[in-house]
Amino acid sequence: MSKAALLTAATRHGGGLMQAAAAYPDAPRPWLDLSTGINPEPWRGPRAPEAELNRLPDPGALVALEAAAASAFGATLERATATAGAEAVIRLLPLLLGVRSVEIVGPTYGAHAEAWRAAGVATRLIAADQAAASQSGVLVIVNPNNPDGRLSRRADLIAMARARSAEGRWLVVDESFIECAPGDSVSDVVEPGLIVLRSFGKFYGLAGVRLGFMLAAPDLGLRLRALLGDWPVGVDALTMGRGAYADTAWRTRTEAVLAERVARLDEQLTRAGFQIVGGTSLFRMTRTPHAARWFQHLCRAGILTRPFDHTPDGLRFGVPIERDLPRLVRALEAFG
Amino acid sequence: MSKAALLTAATRHGGGLMQAAAAYPDAPRPWLDLSTGINPEPWRGPRAPEAELNRLPDPGALVALEAAAASAFGATLERATATAGAEAVIRLLPLLLGVRSVEIVGPTYGAHAEAWRAAGVATRLIAADQAAASQSGVLVIVNPNNPDGRLSRRADLIAMARARSAEGRWLVVDESFIECAPGDSVSDVVEPGLIVLRSFGKFYGLAGVRLGFMLAAPDLGLRLRALLGDWPVGVDALTMGRGAYADTAWRTRTEAVLAERVARLDEQLTRAGFQIVGGTSLFRMTRTPHAARWFQHLCRAGILTRPFDHTPDGLRFGVPIERDLPRLVRALEAFG
Repeated sequence: MSKAALLTAATRHGGGLMQAAAAYPDAPRPWLDLSTGINPEPWRGPRAPEAELNRLPDPGALVALEAAAASAFGATLERATATAGAEAVIRLLPLLLGVRSVEIVGPTYGAHAEAWRAAGVATRLIAADQAAASQSGVLVIVNPNNPDGRLSRRADLIAMARARSAEGRWLVVDESFIECAPGDSVSDVVEPGLIVLRSFGKFYGLAGVRLGFMLAAPDLGLRLRALLGDWPVGVDALTMGRGAYADTAWRTRTEAVLAERVARLDEQLTRAGFQIVGGTSLFRMTRTPHAARWFQHLCRAGILTRPFDHTPDGLRFGVPIERDLPRLVRALEAFG
Repeated sequence: MSKAALLTAATRHGGGLMQAAAAYPDAPRPWLDLSTGINPEPWRGPRAPEAELNRLPDPGALVALEAAAASAFGATLERATATAGAEAVIRLLPLLLGVRSVEIVGPTYGAHAEAWRAAGVATRLIAADQAAASQSGVLVIVNPNNPDGRLSRRADLIAMARARSAEGRWLVVDESFIECAPGDSVSDVVEPGLIVLRSFGKFYGLAGVRLGFMLAAPDLGLRLRALLGDWPVGVDALTMGRGAYADTAWRTRTEAVLAERVARLDEQLTRAGFQIVGGTSLFRMTRTPHAARWFQHLCRAGILTRPFDHTPDGLRFGVPIERDLPRLVRALEAFG
């Protein structure tokens, strides 16, 4: 994509608030960004001290971060490799695995297909009920799925990982939103062909620091690290990631808070005529015959949601905090 | 490298302060870290506001950062691709270029050879006077060179870039320390086969935020971006990078400050019996028959320097700020 195309595509990509503001100059400010599934109430521990910006991140601090995260995931340290966001793993997996075919359970987060296609790998989207029978070199499942929240059950994923491993095939489970469904995580499962991706930014609300993880066989982790170099993440990621993953009280409390928050949103969306297709406690996928008009109407009210090329009658809402809900409700009521 | 090996190797790699402190528990604290070439007096503009940690980095902010950096480098925006440190480019170049042989003018920064060898590319270190005749698919020159400061002249590099481009060969110039010798930069030069790497962390003293750039033909930049994804750097890198590269007054002042500082260091090192082999205004490469003993002696004084496997009689010193120089001088005088 050219730099110009990058800019114009940004509003459809999530996180393109600056572009949306330019396209709707009369919209009230500040914008309410519901275009992503990022927790708007982040974990609030200290950032890296100023002095640490001045140094290369300490390799020991990287291991300490990976240990804290692995422990939170129920995984062992040797399986955890920190990266500058799950995105970094998604983009490099095709190079790491070197297979000739991939099947992706979709529609889902678009970067998966983009990455495999860019690497010249034969890429096919399949339906969820075709996953167990997949014979491709790699099978990718986003769990819970983005944008529709479809959940794959832990027992089914373990069975698939086992069967595929026995045949020398890979199963990639993208658990970017798994904190919303922790019982179905397979982050703790050890199978030679199983690769799990984790995202720090979404549940912990700190997408700006860029932190994610690959959980996989140690030799694969070392090859990923070799592609990323010795300082894959910045000092804020080291400090905040370590603090947040060790904070189990915050995690438990936040699970409950998010569940309450999404129930209130669902009530309002249903009242406004949206059909709620699914989602997680961080985003809701809705269906409406007027998706494009709704998107524009909400933009004029300074509220950014997420439309989809692959589902023109779909609109995804991030889940606002209680304080921001009345603004959304007013905009929902003003549609006509 | 295993996680354990990563830890033990850290003191030899620079930035392994935490490990050095563990190995020398009786050394006075805080440690004085002279193991890297990072400016100890960083650019001091604001970090990203707290609210930005909560969001995905804005794609528009990434373009704005690349524009500010390109302008500081004398390059055009379309040639600049931001990454999480120059290291990220070094590691991925072998995958991007897909050549069969590389020659690296060395000894030099070890990550270059590591990256090419890890990718299975035939890798040879050559002497500086062999560079112009190199027939390899890729030629890598670090300018000024790390650790010895050897300088390649701009006119020679342009001639090489032109000749190699005409033959379909690449020239990679790693300008991680070029702010110490700005007249010999080729960041502004456009040749199809020329790739320039830039580092933010060293001269600006902000290695912890992870920021670097590749300057190259736009199609190569787009392929690198595809491997890194849409959010390659964190919000501190976006904010501080943009601010620092636009601050030409700071850059000019800092060039002068570093030159004064290194003159004072040279005086002290010479007095202590070190032969100064070369360097830049951010680090000095010295030679002494007692390099290993010096390294340990300085560690016991809480001062971390940088020894080298490839040059056992070499020791590299980062350049301390005025306030820290007396501590180094006391340690230099106490050697025996």
